[in-house]
Amino acid sequence: MFQNTLVEVELNNLLPASGAAPEKVHQAIRWSMFAGGKRFRPALLLATGEAFGAPVTALIKTACAFEMIHTYSLIHDDLPSMDDDDLRRGRPTCHVRFGEATAILAGDALQTLAFRTIAEDEQLDLATRVALISELARASGTPEGMVAGQALDMEAEARQVNARELEDIHRHKTGALIVAAARSGAIIGKATEAELDAVTTYGWHLGLLFQITDDLLDITASAEDLGKTPGKDAQSRKATYPGLYGIEETREAAANAHRAGCDALDRIDRSTTVLREIVDFILNRTG
Amino acid sequence: MFQNTLVEVELNNLLPASGAAPEKVHQAIRWSMFAGGKRFRPALLLATGEAFGAPVTALIKTACAFEMIHTYSLIHDDLPSMDDDDLRRGRPTCHVRFGEATAILAGDALQTLAFRTIAEDEQLDLATRVALISELARASGTPEGMVAGQALDMEAEARQVNARELEDIHRHKTGALIVAAARSGAIIGKATEAELDAVTTYGWHLGLLFQITDDLLDITASAEDLGKTPGKDAQSRKATYPGLYGIEETREAAANAHRAGCDALDRIDRSTTVLREIVDFILNRTG
Repeated sequence: MFQNTLVEVELNNLLPASGAAPEKVHQAIRWSMFAGGKRFRPALLLATGEAFGAPVTALIKTACAFEMIHTYSLIHDDLPSMDDDDLRRGRPTCHVRFGEATAILAGDALQTLAFRTIAEDEQLDLATRVALISELARASGTPEGMVAGQALDMEAEARQVNARELEDIHRHKTGALIVAAARSGAIIGKATEAELDAVTTYGWHLGLLFQITDDLLDITASAEDLGKTPGKDAQSRKATYPGLYGIEETREAAANAHRAGCDALDRIDRSTTVLREIVDFILNRTG
Repeated sequence: MFQNTLVEVELNNLLPASGAAPEKVHQAIRWSMFAGGKRFRPALLLATGEAFGAPVTALIKTACAFEMIHTYSLIHDDLPSMDDDDLRRGRPTCHVRFGEATAILAGDALQTLAFRTIAEDEQLDLATRVALISELARASGTPEGMVAGQALDMEAEARQVNARELEDIHRHKTGALIVAAARSGAIIGKATEAELDAVTTYGWHLGLLFQITDDLLDITASAEDLGKTPGKDAQSRKATYPGLYGIEETREAAANAHRAGCDALDRIDRSTTVLREIVDFILNRTG
């Protein structure tokens, strides 16, 4: 659904060659970047930007920057001292393949490259670049973003969390970056404040839906569909929606998030067909 | 020499409060940031910027951003899978005090905050912000910057390196960020291309001098002066200047770097007194 040749080509252009020193770090970056990822965040950014009339040339590099941040976070989250995952998308994780030190450095370098990519994107005016860097930084750091979410998630592993805490974890850990991807497309497309507000609401519900369906898949899907061991969340006592609400109520929550996301799109007087397809796809996804 | 109350106050303002969630990550960030660091890079940036007539209000946030990048790199470099250091500046390192996962996240969040700080600095025009972010990213990532240097350094531990390789390691690992700090002050001060060129040359020699004297101190200084175990580099078979050239020739190389740094300053028709004091101080430093 989300794979896009343009994104693959541009990522390949932006990443240092695997033969460039330090080779091992660059090989590790490429190992994790070209591992069959869904490219959900780039697709969302492209779809939102195109809804607001931005040309793909103005969107593509920022889309890649979001994928770099996402991939760096996967590399670091998989580390032994974090989630300790050996397998991702059916292949050894970065630290298993290249060693822990190289995996840490690969993640660090990918984060840096994300910000550099936006700063140096000559398709964008200066005000837009600065706004996008701020947006991406807030969504990926602390106290508002992804790193905060990972910290909250790890802290929660040791105990039972309530509904409010679970939502708080996911809003930070996955929601913030998904919202920022949608908003960034709209920012590049020079959306109005009211439109940006609708996109933000859409993004939050889409992010929530993404997490809910991720939790559901962890219970219901086969290892082949997932490329990782299903049931791992339950084993590691990760807080999940089905764990807290049961499967039926979780499916209802998914339907509600889907509806709320579509309602937000109704407030945008543009062609939002692809954004609707994305929220439909996430509701019904099997992997 | 380099401590500056303004930098401490501004860092304190920019970093999330230790009581803000996720508390442990923010406490870890502050533990490493307020650990008695020399603030060499901020001091260099302020001195260069002031030489070119920039007001301190326009320099201070970028100076703090450089210290954030430097501190994130120390946190990650100290990790067990990297240099495995338990002590820094006489105190337990971040991962010893807060655990490995929190240390990784603290470093990640600090890197993000550095770029955000520059992007949101309203004292700077948009073109300057974008130029500074590009400058900082190139100096801290791969293939040109600090992360590449750490990777090269680790790769070199297993074998004997030659003079060219040693210089290559240090140009990336410490040189690039020192050069970028000096250049960033000059960029904010709207230096001409010729001036920026002289600042760059000054920065490279200062960075080389910094590394040479660091290596010398590791051999000659007491633990009390260093706040870490002296001789650790030799034990871990890290490549060093004295290891490669002997102490006398290394002292000569330091004097040469000092002289070349001063020569570069002669090409700048501004008051560069403080920049001269910095290179003098690094030549003669005892800690």
